[in-house]
Amino acid sequence: MILVNGKARSEVSAADRGLAYGDGVFRTFPARNGKPMHWRRHYAKLARDGAALGLRAPPADVLAADVSSACGGQQECAVKIILTRGAGARGYRYAAGEEPTRVVSAEPLSPGSSERRSGGIAVRLCSLKLGHQPALAGLKHLNRLENVLARAEWSDPGIAEGLMRDTVGNVICGTMTNIFVAAGGALATPRLDRCGVAGVTRERVMEAAGRAGYSCAVTTLTWSDVLGAEEVFLVNSLAGIWPVRDLDGQSRTPGTITRELQRALERDDDAQMA
Amino acid sequence: MILVNGKARSEVSAADRGLAYGDGVFRTFPARNGKPMHWRRHYAKLARDGAALGLRAPPADVLAADVSSACGGQQECAVKIILTRGAGARGYRYAAGEEPTRVVSAEPLSPGSSERRSGGIAVRLCSLKLGHQPALAGLKHLNRLENVLARAEWSDPGIAEGLMRDTVGNVICGTMTNIFVAAGGALATPRLDRCGVAGVTRERVMEAAGRAGYSCAVTTLTWSDVLGAEEVFLVNSLAGIWPVRDLDGQSRTPGTITRELQRALERDDDAQMA
Repeated sequence: MILVNGKARSEVSAADRGLAYGDGVFRTFPARNGKPMHWRRHYAKLARDGAALGLRAPPADVLAADVSSACGGQQECAVKIILTRGAGARGYRYAAGEEPTRVVSAEPLSPGSSERRSGGIAVRLCSLKLGHQPALAGLKHLNRLENVLARAEWSDPGIAEGLMRDTVGNVICGTMTNIFVAAGGALATPRLDRCGVAGVTRERVMEAAGRAGYSCAVTTLTWSDVLGAEEVFLVNSLAGIWPVRDLDGQSRTPGTITRELQRALERDDDAQMA
Repeated sequence: MILVNGKARSEVSAADRGLAYGDGVFRTFPARNGKPMHWRRHYAKLARDGAALGLRAPPADVLAADVSSACGGQQECAVKIILTRGAGARGYRYAAGEEPTRVVSAEPLSPGSSERRSGGIAVRLCSLKLGHQPALAGLKHLNRLENVLARAEWSDPGIAEGLMRDTVGNVICGTMTNIFVAAGGALATPRLDRCGVAGVTRERVMEAAGRAGYSCAVTTLTWSDVLGAEEVFLVNSLAGIWPVRDLDGQSRTPGTITRELQRALERDDDAQMA
């Protein structure tokens, strides 16, 4: 089910700047019984990312109503919101008064995600290196060719995710996840001020870690740091926390901090839906 | 007039990967009497850029027929072709068999372009710096947020273009043009192996310069090199060659090499349409 600007329809203008230039932002997250999970955070992130591009998000209640309509009667679904600068004339310049386009879609959650949470996943290291662009770093914008090219590097369905480094070789993220490592009872996750997406679940994990008494450094992480870590896990809003059980061929066991944070996020999910 | 996959219509699927991820490439060029100018070059560039993303372009005659339809009876028009990976399921991974989407549109040429060719243009220096991404450098792909943000830096209609540097400070291009400088009877234009778009008119200018006996270095160009050059001009397929008459406040006179290359390109235009 897809809604474009609140109406059930499956198409957007061929002159939309989202298509022409990737001029927009997006979010993907779960909903339960038509209610978006962690909505306050997702809406805030959408609005903040839009604002960084000079793009104003529709009111939160308008988008939440779209989500509810798109979910229909489904108990659980994966929701995606795309917000673009709308249709415009040819050329990079945009007019101040352009009307944004919002596309809200919902589909069933991927099967196998809870199995990945319990059993862990196999990940590989991608060749494609992320470029540095501080003006776009952290934002979930629609310019995602780097992710598309990195994801095209493998087809083995047994490998759930690929890790990406930046052009100077530091580990930044997975193609669709953020990464955390734990060693000596402390967590670390890459700084995302030059590339990568600062996701909502990354933020939730950092907060949950703080509440559980673990420090979490936002820092530079090398591939050696990742290989040497006691625990490695990947996160996103649909996945929650995926422990890594195979790190580019290195076999690993999901660790106690990973399990503790998984439980904390699940409690948090249940509490905010209560 | 817009054609989507050869049919007159103004919308594309909201699930198109061009919208979701900027997963595609494009071209903009003039047509005369429904016939695309320098078509062999434009088609080759579209096909090459698509291939770099694992995306197969439709046959040249199919696209040329779309251009002719989109132009209708107009004597001269500005044509745009967008080629995307087509509609797909959520997620960065794409299936091998996905059917590309092609969007072909035509509109009247911008008024004032020939005045800019004769009188020259005012340009400014943009703050936004282009990031390095060798995997995408040179391609005219749909991930153009850097250009959008740079173009949003000014609104003065008297300034036709903004020059962009990369993250290490070298001059790369304008937001919608390639740049050439001339000094001591020799030309230079930036290397585009880390960022920027290697356009068709850039290629034509380099060839015309060679035929006219001028060397043209593809090199690193600093802002000082540009300020110190005897001649500065910007090029793209719709503009042809625009001499710079105001370089970020520095007043300049269009030079003899610029004028010679303008005449060479116009002869070349007329010859290939004859």
